[in-house]
Amino acid sequence: MTKVPYAWSWFIEWQTPYEFHAHEVDSVLLEVKTKFQEVKLVNLRRFGKALIIDGKTQSTVSDEFIYHESLVHPLLLSVSNPQKVLIIGGGEGATLREVLRHKTVKRAVMVDIDEAVIQIAKQMMPEWHHAFDDARPQLIIGDGLKFIEETQENFDAIILDLTDPMKDSPSYKLYTREFYSSLKRVLREGGALVTQSTSPSFSLETFSVIFNTLRNTFRYASAVVSYVPAFDGLWGFSYASDRTVVGEMGQSEVDSKLEETVKGELKYYDGRTHLAMFNIPKYIRDFVKRERRISTEADPIYVPA
Amino acid sequence: MTKVPYAWSWFIEWQTPYEFHAHEVDSVLLEVKTKFQEVKLVNLRRFGKALIIDGKTQSTVSDEFIYHESLVHPLLLSVSNPQKVLIIGGGEGATLREVLRHKTVKRAVMVDIDEAVIQIAKQMMPEWHHAFDDARPQLIIGDGLKFIEETQENFDAIILDLTDPMKDSPSYKLYTREFYSSLKRVLREGGALVTQSTSPSFSLETFSVIFNTLRNTFRYASAVVSYVPAFDGLWGFSYASDRTVVGEMGQSEVDSKLEETVKGELKYYDGRTHLAMFNIPKYIRDFVKRERRISTEADPIYVPA
Amino acid sequence: MTKVPYAWSWFIEWQTPYEFHAHEVDSVLLEVKTKFQEVKLVNLRRFGKALIIDGKTQSTVSDEFIYHESLVHPLLLSVSNPQKVLIIGGGEGATLREVLRHKTVKRAVMVDIDEAVIQIAKQMMPEWHHAFDDARPQLIIGDGLKFIEETQENFDAIILDLTDPMKDSPSYKLYTREFYSSLKRVLREGGALVTQSTSPSFSLETFSVIFNTLRNTFRYASAVVSYVPAFDGLWGFSYASDRTVVGEMGQSEVDSKLEETVKGELKYYDGRTHLAMFNIPKYIRDFVKRERRISTEADPIYVPA
Amino acid sequence: MTKVPYAWSWFIEWQTPYEFHAHEVDSVLLEVKTKFQEVKLVNLRRFGKALIIDGKTQSTVSDEFIYHESLVHPLLLSVSNPQKVLIIGGGEGATLREVLRHKTVKRAVMVDIDEAVIQIAKQMMPEWHHAFDDARPQLIIGDGLKFIEETQENFDAIILDLTDPMKDSPSYKLYTREFYSSLKRVLREGGALVTQSTSPSFSLETFSVIFNTLRNTFRYASAVVSYVPAFDGLWGFSYASDRTVVGEMGQSEVDSKLEETVKGELKYYDGRTHLAMFNIPKYIRDFVKRERRISTEADPIYVPA
Repeated sequence: MTKVPYAWSWFIEWQTPYEFHAHEVDSVLLEVKTKFQEVKLVNLRRFGKALIIDGKTQSTVSDEFIYHESLVHPLLLSVSNPQKVLIIGGGEGATLREVLRHKTVKRAVMVDIDEAVIQIAKQMMPEWHHAFDDARPQLIIGDGLKFIEETQENFDAIILDLTDPMKDSPSYKLYTREFYSSLKRVLREGGALVTQSTSPSFSLETFSVIFNTLRNTFRYASAVVSYVPAFDGLWGFSYASDRTVVGEMGQSEVDSKLEETVKGELKYYDGRTHLAMFNIPKYIRDFVKRERRISTEADPIYVPA
Repeated sequence: MTKVPYAWSWFIEWQTPYEFHAHEVDSVLLEVKTKFQEVKLVNLRRFGKALIIDGKTQSTVSDEFIYHESLVHPLLLSVSNPQKVLIIGGGEGATLREVLRHKTVKRAVMVDIDEAVIQIAKQMMPEWHHAFDDARPQLIIGDGLKFIEETQENFDAIILDLTDPMKDSPSYKLYTREFYSSLKRVLREGGALVTQSTSPSFSLETFSVIFNTLRNTFRYASAVVSYVPAFDGLWGFSYASDRTVVGEMGQSEVDSKLEETVKGELKYYDGRTHLAMFNIPKYIRDFVKRERRISTEADPIYVPA
Repeated sequence: MTKVPYAWSWFIEWQTPYEFHAHEVDSVLLEVKTKFQEVKLVNLRRFGKALIIDGKTQSTVSDEFIYHESLVHPLLLSVSNPQKVLIIGGGEGATLREVLRHKTVKRAVMVDIDEAVIQIAKQMMPEWHHAFDDARPQLIIGDGLKFIEETQENFDAIILDLTDPMKDSPSYKLYTREFYSSLKRVLREGGALVTQSTSPSFSLETFSVIFNTLRNTFRYASAVVSYVPAFDGLWGFSYASDRTVVGEMGQSEVDSKLEETVKGELKYYDGRTHLAMFNIPKYIRDFVKRERRISTEADPIYVPA
Repeated sequence: MTKVPYAWSWFIEWQTPYEFHAHEVDSVLLEVKTKFQEVKLVNLRRFGKALIIDGKTQSTVSDEFIYHESLVHPLLLSVSNPQKVLIIGGGEGATLREVLRHKTVKRAVMVDIDEAVIQIAKQMMPEWHHAFDDARPQLIIGDGLKFIEETQENFDAIILDLTDPMKDSPSYKLYTREFYSSLKRVLREGGALVTQSTSPSFSLETFSVIFNTLRNTFRYASAVVSYVPAFDGLWGFSYASDRTVVGEMGQSEVDSKLEETVKGELKYYDGRTHLAMFNIPKYIRDFVKRERRISTEADPIYVPA
């Protein structure tokens, strides 16, 4: 049959049942079913090496820096002298990598449920992290919810690098008021937390309810958005603390703090990007302002199916 | 055969030969070939009513405000007392709508080559504009390049609302140094211009070269990005002037100017969004900083094919 | 954005949740929701005008002759002197068109539940039939099952031109032993029937069970397949009678009968095509031979979901 | 982001620039670029293990028997006492497997240009063939055209198992009158040949011209079609000889010859399938009948691009 000069090996990401985005796959590096999920590592023509879990792009070598710098740096720059950091999730290691750039950090605990993903990252995703060699991090394979219940340790910063809240997923309880309340015991006074907050482009309500839940559980909450090409839209992050307003820094303050405490040059985050992130578009701000719903264990928020 | 509960009527937008984005089409309102292009008006499940030209989404009822407010308001707030505004392109009328919100504007000339698109907009896209009833605008069907050569009029602001520069397209010459130079004769002293500048997400080089060409032709140039969901990425806009630095306003200055001179409430643009727009992400800023190429008639820039 | 020279308006037909076939749509002629189904009439680039119901191609102007000639002619040539013919279904009119080619036919009753489809066919699908002007047919809008229960008339041939049997569909009962038994009262002695029998390429079991149900309800049963391009595979038809073996004719007998009793030239069916149809591929024959399941109201067969 | 329960790893086969067929890929077994082509071995959800070359399905474990039995058996049953058989192409080994079922065959020479494909077949496609262990075949890695020019041997049957004729492809010359004439020197008197003849469903003209070229070069020519699901349509095969009418056998003659000379049970071909194959649908027959064009080196036939 005719050879048509069109791409023929495709990864199709369904945003909704009525929308999909298709990417040519240059090659497949790994396909595996772990105890928890279906994991693929592929080379996408547009984005290069990409980690795909259960059909969803998790991160790609060419733009993962946007997500991970957004998640980590505004938080750690806002907390004074962050020494002990807890990451829940974060399997591919890039969140840890960003945390360890901070010279103040003496200990970083990462709790992830899927050991297989960590092994894949170690062996096949060196671009994501050089972090696993560092002496400061401790890896714990296990359930984040249970870890929080049981730990006797205190942290200066907590980073929730979770999958989106979905019905029957292990993660949906980690977006509820009950869980956020339980974090207070684990956060040291003056500490702060961040959670990835889904995409306001695809689920504005979910983003908005997560933020509102934090706003009603902690004294201070703030939210940002960053555009992540491989995620097909804006991505949201929410910060909360009982003592600190995360993000309340001017452009030059961010730049000088970065200079002082963060090793290496960042690609996404700096003083000007900080301004862009913390000034989310008016239509999203207006929506969030009107939000009244709180996510609870009895009535949790999900991303739309 | 089995009825599968999946969508079956699709609009597929090719970003590149190795990437496409597919949207369910709820219904087709109009399909027509004009003298210049293939035009469809459809209802997309995600975005609602959408104008598609030659397979590219031009604007959708649910997010066109982002593009059009970005294009118009930073420019007109930066020019002092803009009374006469020239729009080249802008067939669907929404750019004109935003221009006419400015109380200072006494005359708005819009030059578009495709009368059919204007007629479609008037009859079937009332959501886009109520502008054509206003007494201030003058519509001219014709070639923008020729209009600039021949007009004896001066304008306070010029808005280039063009299709992307492509080989053999009518628009590519309107992104060159020669064309930008010719605009100087038509801009009044102290006036400023804006051009849509393609998507830095899909063609960072094109965005960068357009900006660099302006920077080398005018004394002052600035660039912004806004995320437009229906365009699948960040969209770029560049401003230029020999007297005015477009965008050099603080948050509250923008808000008070809007209050004073713009009728109605905007959905995207305000003081905070202004900060976000004018602080483009570091990786894009860094790329633009290194750009040396200038688009000329002899060596014009195109978007990648 | 770049104009990519690829098709952008598509009809996607899902064969299964893990397979789809996409066709460029040149234009949309009609989109309507009837009381029973979602109906579109479109121009497909490959097949031309096409009737699509609930996401499934029903027939296209360029190959509907294959389906309709297969359905009608072997049956009517096998029954001696067919004068009264009953069609259940057949909304677009082409089955009736083929029936009326037979000079012996004096009366043709067509019972279809969806009047809207018949109106669409009359007004917008003249290529399918010139049949509705003929004096011999009677159209009845209604439920075929109920018609069979209530009619006092006898027919020489019955043609079941139905949608595929699906859970909760109106048609699945018309593929059961109970329904086939009820047809015996309506068939005149020596009469025969045909039913479309789904695609053995996509649901070999369904094809096989329908045939086996007829084989166990009537004295004689036979089955054929024809390849229909727009249906993406082989299509099955089953015939049954208590007196006649449908299809038991040689090549030249078919040709001379066609010459004698059928008006106009056929495009698909003749003596040689008859041989091809009645000699279905060995692997399908072998599968059918082993079939033991019978479709009943208590345990009906469906096409796979 | 939401996990949507839809398939996300796809092989897309473009039939034309305005039509494609998408299949879920369960897993990728091998991706390699040989000296000549891009080869993938994948598991398709519908068809199982599948060999895909340059974006085109070559054969799948679940239906390759249809193509290969069609190609080989009518030919070898039509030639009396076929002892020496030449295969040009046939890399995956299944054509050879079918040839070696014939007890009369003493020697089988297979000439294929791409050694890599043969190695892949040997190591990863055992379902296709057990043939490479047999003592009778000789494998030659090389250009079929050159082999024909140089060989001093005679064959009872020649099988052209080639890729489709395309501009700039190595195979297009093997569909011309000049090449067919050169085969006469290599065929023993009374011998016959077969060539795959592209899909009459997608390129009726190509099928028709190939047949017409044979019909004008040899005394006898015949053509058949078989429906191959993984090829999305009917597939054509043409036979030619100066002494034998390939296919001129009745149903029971085919069955008794198979019984006598072919080892093992076939899945597709037998006496009844023979009748179906050799009686191609009327609309294809009518088209072929009107064909006047002959493929020559100066004016070769291609499949449509």
